[in-house]
Amino acid sequence: MTTPEERLHALGIVLPEVPKPVANYVPFKRAGSLLFLSGQVPRNPDGTLCVGRLGAGLSLSEAQGHARLCALQLIAVAKMAVSELSRVSVVKLFGMVNAAPDFGDHPKVINGASDLFVEIFGEDGRHARSAVGMGSLPGGVSVEIEAILDVR
Amino acid sequence: MTTPEERLHALGIVLPEVPKPVANYVPFKRAGSLLFLSGQVPRNPDGTLCVGRLGAGLSLSEAQGHARLCALQLIAVAKMAVSELSRVSVVKLFGMVNAAPDFGDHPKVINGASDLFVEIFGEDGRHARSAVGMGSLPGGVSVEIEAILDVR
Amino acid sequence: MTTPEERLHALGIVLPEVPKPVANYVPFKRAGSLLFLSGQVPRNPDGTLCVGRLGAGLSLSEAQGHARLCALQLIAVAKMAVSELSRVSVVKLFGMVNAAPDFGDHPKVINGASDLFVEIFGEDGRHARSAVGMGSLPGGVSVEIEAILDVR
Repeated sequence: MTTPEERLHALGIVLPEVPKPVANYVPFKRAGSLLFLSGQVPRNPDGTLCVGRLGAGLSLSEAQGHARLCALQLIAVAKMAVSELSRVSVVKLFGMVNAAPDFGDHPKVINGASDLFVEIFGEDGRHARSAVGMGSLPGGVSVEIEAILDVR
Repeated sequence: MTTPEERLHALGIVLPEVPKPVANYVPFKRAGSLLFLSGQVPRNPDGTLCVGRLGAGLSLSEAQGHARLCALQLIAVAKMAVSELSRVSVVKLFGMVNAAPDFGDHPKVINGASDLFVEIFGEDGRHARSAVGMGSLPGGVSVEIEAILDVR
Repeated sequence: MTTPEERLHALGIVLPEVPKPVANYVPFKRAGSLLFLSGQVPRNPDGTLCVGRLGAGLSLSEAQGHARLCALQLIAVAKMAVSELSRVSVVKLFGMVNAAPDFGDHPKVINGASDLFVEIFGEDGRHARSAVGMGSLPGGVSVEIEAILDVR
């Protein structure tokens, strides 16, 4: 049985540093077997935020990449919380897209995250989710994703 | 004791087909006794999406009907998950309304769903909730609702 | 060990009346050890809603005060649910800010709530959260916050 860490390694993925919360909160909190992860926003390798708005300049493929970055950061937080990623399954994502009022392809954007979770966690990566459009997001980021995991 | 299925029958309601997720996710995921349902968007009998924006052409009563359709689809997913609806209680709804910036009657829209849950599930249908305005929604739908249920 | 009630008293804070839900739902619902709190919107002492939009007239400091009011109402609901506040820890906040598309300081707004939770509950008040921008909110309020608590 391949572990999520082995799948990450095989794909050449190094988990990013977990960004410090910008306020009086924590990146995760456990309640019983549930692990609630704070919303993650995408960052470039140099630490700057990935900004932009769907339907107003930002392309779908760029935004999918940003959603994938959010997922990588969520996985990094999960790793910090439980040490071994094989201990968690992904229960629920809430995918928030910074978009113009007439944009409609939110599910395709958030697939950038969902596909990565399934790639890394296999069946345990399959999750319930919503993918919706926000009026604005912190720092003008294009995507923010929060997650609920279940810990064995 | 009347079951939710009997109440649906008495009201002449046939649960809709559960729409296939449009991406790499699942309509529900269970974690312990909690059942997380993916956001459902309203569909017309011919399968087309119910679109529109509150405060920009769509009427309150139409939108309430759309919220009720979301609730029916959520109930259909719950039935698929647990077979007997008397096994679940409704814990939490997140009701998302596609609305212009100056719209303010989100609670009235989502009542179209909340009222149906109480009608079908009785006391078990009473839930915590938020009813809020999104900047945009997938495919331009008017309403999207996600739910958390508790399974006995 | 100081209780949350003693900290509230020391700060001269009297918990507000819990506003009646404006529709067919309840202010909280328990599922196992989790307590789900409905979204609270801020109210002035005279009961009127605190309205306004960030990036469109409302100041950051006013909005932080509104977020703090939401937190006080959430604490009042928690007190109603479990009688002794030392029985709960704060798991997750979802902080929703009514903002113009180019606003980006949502985390600073929701700090008005997060800081109060930590002040009153100490370590038990530290929580996961997201702080994001909505297209519109009920009655034109500036902030709405929902919460998940864990009950001992």
